[in-house]
Amino acid sequence: MSQLPLKGIKVLDLTSVIVGPVATRWLADYGADVIKVEPEGGDLIRTLGGVSSSGRFSPKYLNFNRNKRSLGIDLKHPEAQALMRDLIAQSDIVITNMRHNALVKLGLDYASVSAIRPDVIHCSIVGFDQRGPYAGKPAYDTIVQGASGFADTFARMEGTPRYVPLTITDHIVGFIAVQMVLLALLHRRMTGEGQSIEVPMFENMADFILSEHMGQKVFTGSDGPTGDLRILNPLTQPIRTSDGYICVSANTDKQAFALFDAIDRPDMKTDPRFSSVSARLKNIDLYLSTRDAALARQTSAHWLEIFDRTDVPAMPCHTFESLMADDQLSAVEFFDTLDHPVEGRLTDMRLPNRTSKNWEKPSVPAPDIGQDTDQVLRDLGYPDNRIAALRQAGAVFGRNAEESHNG
Amino acid sequence: MSQLPLKGIKVLDLTSVIVGPVATRWLADYGADVIKVEPEGGDLIRTLGGVSSSGRFSPKYLNFNRNKRSLGIDLKHPEAQALMRDLIAQSDIVITNMRHNALVKLGLDYASVSAIRPDVIHCSIVGFDQRGPYAGKPAYDTIVQGASGFADTFARMEGTPRYVPLTITDHIVGFIAVQMVLLALLHRRMTGEGQSIEVPMFENMADFILSEHMGQKVFTGSDGPTGDLRILNPLTQPIRTSDGYICVSANTDKQAFALFDAIDRPDMKTDPRFSSVSARLKNIDLYLSTRDAALARQTSAHWLEIFDRTDVPAMPCHTFESLMADDQLSAVEFFDTLDHPVEGRLTDMRLPNRTSKNWEKPSVPAPDIGQDTDQVLRDLGYPDNRIAALRQAGAVFGRNAEESHNG
Repeated sequence: MSQLPLKGIKVLDLTSVIVGPVATRWLADYGADVIKVEPEGGDLIRTLGGVSSSGRFSPKYLNFNRNKRSLGIDLKHPEAQALMRDLIAQSDIVITNMRHNALVKLGLDYASVSAIRPDVIHCSIVGFDQRGPYAGKPAYDTIVQGASGFADTFARMEGTPRYVPLTITDHIVGFIAVQMVLLALLHRRMTGEGQSIEVPMFENMADFILSEHMGQKVFTGSDGPTGDLRILNPLTQPIRTSDGYICVSANTDKQAFALFDAIDRPDMKTDPRFSSVSARLKNIDLYLSTRDAALARQTSAHWLEIFDRTDVPAMPCHTFESLMADDQLSAVEFFDTLDHPVEGRLTDMRLPNRTSKNWEKPSVPAPDIGQDTDQVLRDLGYPDNRIAALRQAGAVFGRNAEESHNG
Repeated sequence: MSQLPLKGIKVLDLTSVIVGPVATRWLADYGADVIKVEPEGGDLIRTLGGVSSSGRFSPKYLNFNRNKRSLGIDLKHPEAQALMRDLIAQSDIVITNMRHNALVKLGLDYASVSAIRPDVIHCSIVGFDQRGPYAGKPAYDTIVQGASGFADTFARMEGTPRYVPLTITDHIVGFIAVQMVLLALLHRRMTGEGQSIEVPMFENMADFILSEHMGQKVFTGSDGPTGDLRILNPLTQPIRTSDGYICVSANTDKQAFALFDAIDRPDMKTDPRFSSVSARLKNIDLYLSTRDAALARQTSAHWLEIFDRTDVPAMPCHTFESLMADDQLSAVEFFDTLDHPVEGRLTDMRLPNRTSKNWEKPSVPAPDIGQDTDQVLRDLGYPDNRIAALRQAGAVFGRNAEESHNG
């Protein structure tokens, strides 16, 4: 076992809901000490992310906040100011998805924070680049999906724009924020310097979509179409069998010929309409509809067994439930359990990537609101009577472990 | 202007098509010296990724391979072996999406590579965790979409599983590979140690989907449903106007009431079916169908002007074309031009994130096949006659700049 790569890095986490907590989940999973700052009532996703027995630990909250500590604090309380200054002074990273005006008011913008801690890395996740006309606009995941062209990928395929039923842009921009923070940490290790980083959702997703679908418009002045036309083909979909759906992708001659044998159509191997990659592309409608009609006649298990044996790329089209029962995931011990003091035993997932350093796995379940308030203050050197006074004044709060147990 | 954070890092890039080149695009954009290893004919995505005048620079190839150098080399050629050893000796990072057996045969697996360069970071992007029963299976983006539950998000919303018309899992796993490489670089800066990293597409995407959609199954033994039911609501879609689609997300009372005023239904503000967040959730079908019927009667511009003025979250539902003409992107100078020696003037995108360090922007257009072969060999200290001999033997190849100009 080797120490996690972010061990010793202190993160002041001023994020909520999805995009920010996804980013700090990675930092926490890789060993950073993430202090999640929560208002009275806690992060909205505690309730918005699904049902739990206590009402405070939605499934989504649990999955995105493991390995973090929670500090309950009223940022607008006059006595919270000095405490925040002390917290900032010990933080390597401050990360937030609050709007810029709110940050300035609370003294949590880069100028204020770096005055206290000059080498801080300050990462601000925003909807839009703050220099443009959309700077003040609110951004939700679906708004960014629509504005960035993500929804248009479906319109281009079949006529109607649509959203993906996932907070996909939150997740992707969360990855990008982590990437930027890690780059800034490397920069700091080399130079000793901190920096501020602005991560705008709209611009990052525009880059994401256009890097794939700019099409002929990459050639300045071209009047050719946008879009990767191969990917936008509406026929490329999971295939219906007699009892469900499977995924099959027979691209090379070897794969396609094995598929023809499997569906009892060996004649297609020598049919000039299907005997080469380019021939199949030219006759793609007929190729795929012939394939689909044949596959509809037998079960998924029947086809997957044959395709596995004959090396045709194919997999079950998993439901969430069948995915959780998948043989591979079981063999590689993908799922773990984690005992939560309030919600009981949880199904957790280990880090999917393996390294030869065999990083230790941190495995602390997601915290209750302000569960670590006292400890965080003690770590700052605050004596017990000062902590009690701050609690008394309502500047900080939080259930302690015992209260949590009693719901 | 500040030096890019990966300046001086040397990457030996043994990847092709999408997932790997997306990962090394980020490394190159942030200043690493990425040497793209290409076989005769070059990376498949040069032609598979769309049409270009020369036939060698598809739009997708151009977008994913800027700021890299290309080394044309026949890895199976006996005289290529010594050259690869010399290249490995100077590489900080070796990254690949070849299958494990091929890597071992070519002496490019971690054991072989770290014998030459003990502190190397070796990142292997694979379809499946190599300890499980699926280890040898081929993985394409659509296969991973189906197997990971991504396609099931659509089935859960409306009955039929489907793929997203984007190589979405390639992009996401590319981000994850970068994250792992940056963590390993931080580890090396602290300890001097390299390591191997395995990044499996299936397991990473299973984690991605289930972290959002595990639902009640996070509670071990629960018989509640999987899925975040709020996100899976089929009514959450872009909204049709009289001349297109817009994205609107009126969640709070303030936003919903402004929307009711905008559609001339101020009565809804006091209607107990619509006067609170929970009431609207209970009557979501009626709420959204009333909204949609009203919005269909006027143009997108009409609604966007009102919503902008009244602070209702709303944005155009952009097509790829209208996105490229967006006012915000123009104001923040999102698009750049880049002159390519073969394909002429290109539309490029700057890095979407801004930092106070004002990192310099590298802006070298994507290379031709083996365009940098001679220079890479010269950098290794090879004299001209040795380079000529290697070319003569067919171990290395590549158009030089002048040949490129002549097509």
